[in-house]
Amino acid sequence: MRVLVTGSSGFLGRHVADHLSGLVGYEVAGYDLRPMHSDRYLSTVGDLCDLEAVVGAVCDADVVVHFGGIGDVDVATEHPSLAAAANVVGTMNVALAAQQAAARVVYASTWEVYGTPRYDPVDEQHLCDPGHVYGATKLGGEQMLSALHQSGELPTAILRLGTAYGPGMRPNAVFSRFADAARAGAPITVHGSGRQWRQFTHTSDVVRAVQLAIESDLDELTVNVVTDEVVTIRELAEIVASRYGVPVEFGPERHGDPPSSIISSERAASLLGWRAQVAFQEGLAALLRETDAAAEPLTAVRGR
Amino acid sequence: MRVLVTGSSGFLGRHVADHLSGLVGYEVAGYDLRPMHSDRYLSTVGDLCDLEAVVGAVCDADVVVHFGGIGDVDVATEHPSLAAAANVVGTMNVALAAQQAAARVVYASTWEVYGTPRYDPVDEQHLCDPGHVYGATKLGGEQMLSALHQSGELPTAILRLGTAYGPGMRPNAVFSRFADAARAGAPITVHGSGRQWRQFTHTSDVVRAVQLAIESDLDELTVNVVTDEVVTIRELAEIVASRYGVPVEFGPERHGDPPSSIISSERAASLLGWRAQVAFQEGLAALLRETDAAAEPLTAVRGR
Repeated sequence: MRVLVTGSSGFLGRHVADHLSGLVGYEVAGYDLRPMHSDRYLSTVGDLCDLEAVVGAVCDADVVVHFGGIGDVDVATEHPSLAAAANVVGTMNVALAAQQAAARVVYASTWEVYGTPRYDPVDEQHLCDPGHVYGATKLGGEQMLSALHQSGELPTAILRLGTAYGPGMRPNAVFSRFADAARAGAPITVHGSGRQWRQFTHTSDVVRAVQLAIESDLDELTVNVVTDEVVTIRELAEIVASRYGVPVEFGPERHGDPPSSIISSERAASLLGWRAQVAFQEGLAALLRETDAAAEPLTAVRGR
Repeated sequence: MRVLVTGSSGFLGRHVADHLSGLVGYEVAGYDLRPMHSDRYLSTVGDLCDLEAVVGAVCDADVVVHFGGIGDVDVATEHPSLAAAANVVGTMNVALAAQQAAARVVYASTWEVYGTPRYDPVDEQHLCDPGHVYGATKLGGEQMLSALHQSGELPTAILRLGTAYGPGMRPNAVFSRFADAARAGAPITVHGSGRQWRQFTHTSDVVRAVQLAIESDLDELTVNVVTDEVVTIRELAEIVASRYGVPVEFGPERHGDPPSSIISSERAASLLGWRAQVAFQEGLAALLRETDAAAEPLTAVRGR
């Protein structure tokens, strides 16, 4: 199985490329705008908006795992035009290149495409009305894939991923902010009441869903890939704070934070046999242990 | 009222800019990639994908009427990456520029965002699943506007226009194909049974809806702008054929034609006071008369 991973220098793309390249029967290549060295696979430096370059990178692949684009909500908010280009045009280019190569696409979408929940739990039939740039551009990417899937041949698996955590995560994630502050001995600041919640999904669970999607023979698939476990921001803050002996403080609510939803991944369970396996307490403890051992900010450490 | 019309050299954009520039109290400017001269308003030549150029063109406007981008279904199908860039990134750029200028956006979307109808008549609550490149990129444009509207200030009117007909229409529209063939004495070829139908909406009705949307003070509006009158392709062929005394022939069905839907514009009636006023037989007869008088292909004639 020849797999091209786009966004292979990014947080989740690196985990996926690392994992797949260790499996028997997989030949992995990377594609990213930012160069990154790995001993396990070759990467091409290229722009998703450059159709010719994408076609060249995809031409030998059986599957394209598409994590590339603007994956950082804050960057998308600050640079909406760039986010639209990278996430929508970039995904169209991946879709076109995959169609040309008769390859399957596994697309990393997000639970944030749903926007404010109309009902609980949110399944894949729920209206998509993200209401912010990041979600809108990721949804736009889904629609480019769907258009090519419906108007031609293009086997497509769309994974609407939960908020992921694990080694190498972004410095602006709530997770990283809390851990980095606490390790520096500073108090942890929770914005708002802290009663807002998330379904933090461990990188290893995301990676496993990607592998299941690659190995599935379904022609079309859209599934939530989100752990069932719900954690409030306050709980997260308290776990981290008690580990490092720092206080938790409460600050004003932040405008634009995504709403608290309950996302159901029953469909991923029935169609892919996927269920999250990493319990949050364990995943968090392991992550903090690794970080402590490395004596580096959380965001700079890579898991093996 | 200072109005910038994007796509002002295109079929509908020209009608809109022509009409508005004749109204008291309106100052009209155009923006298009293709230069076009009008005695009634000034146009800037520029690319929608060039954010800086769009910001420059929009900065003085109170309203941006956004018809620019790839409006031709066939061009979008042949150049999906270009369509995604022009229609999604282009609309994001218009939205950003309008937000910066505190201007209102009136966006020319399409009934084709709905895709295969799940129920009849199709209202604005209907699921959007276009299933082809043109519809997906127009829907992507809607979502860019909606994201900026919801995450900041951006008064937005989205008009989901019916298939428009009138002077200056595209040569590949079914309308133009029939009329141009018949006027040349050739038989008219209907693809499929001819029982598929459309709600052909006259340019003057489209233009009136745009004006009503400009003058509305609603902060957010998404409405279908489609005539209630339903005409089958066979009826259209027979009207045109009988006028020119040519036969109607039936050919194989075309892959990728949009589905026959019944679109309801009740919401436009109640929120904007818009109803189509041009009966199809009259609109068609007038169009053919003008074309005959000009002794030119339908597509080359401009209405006044």
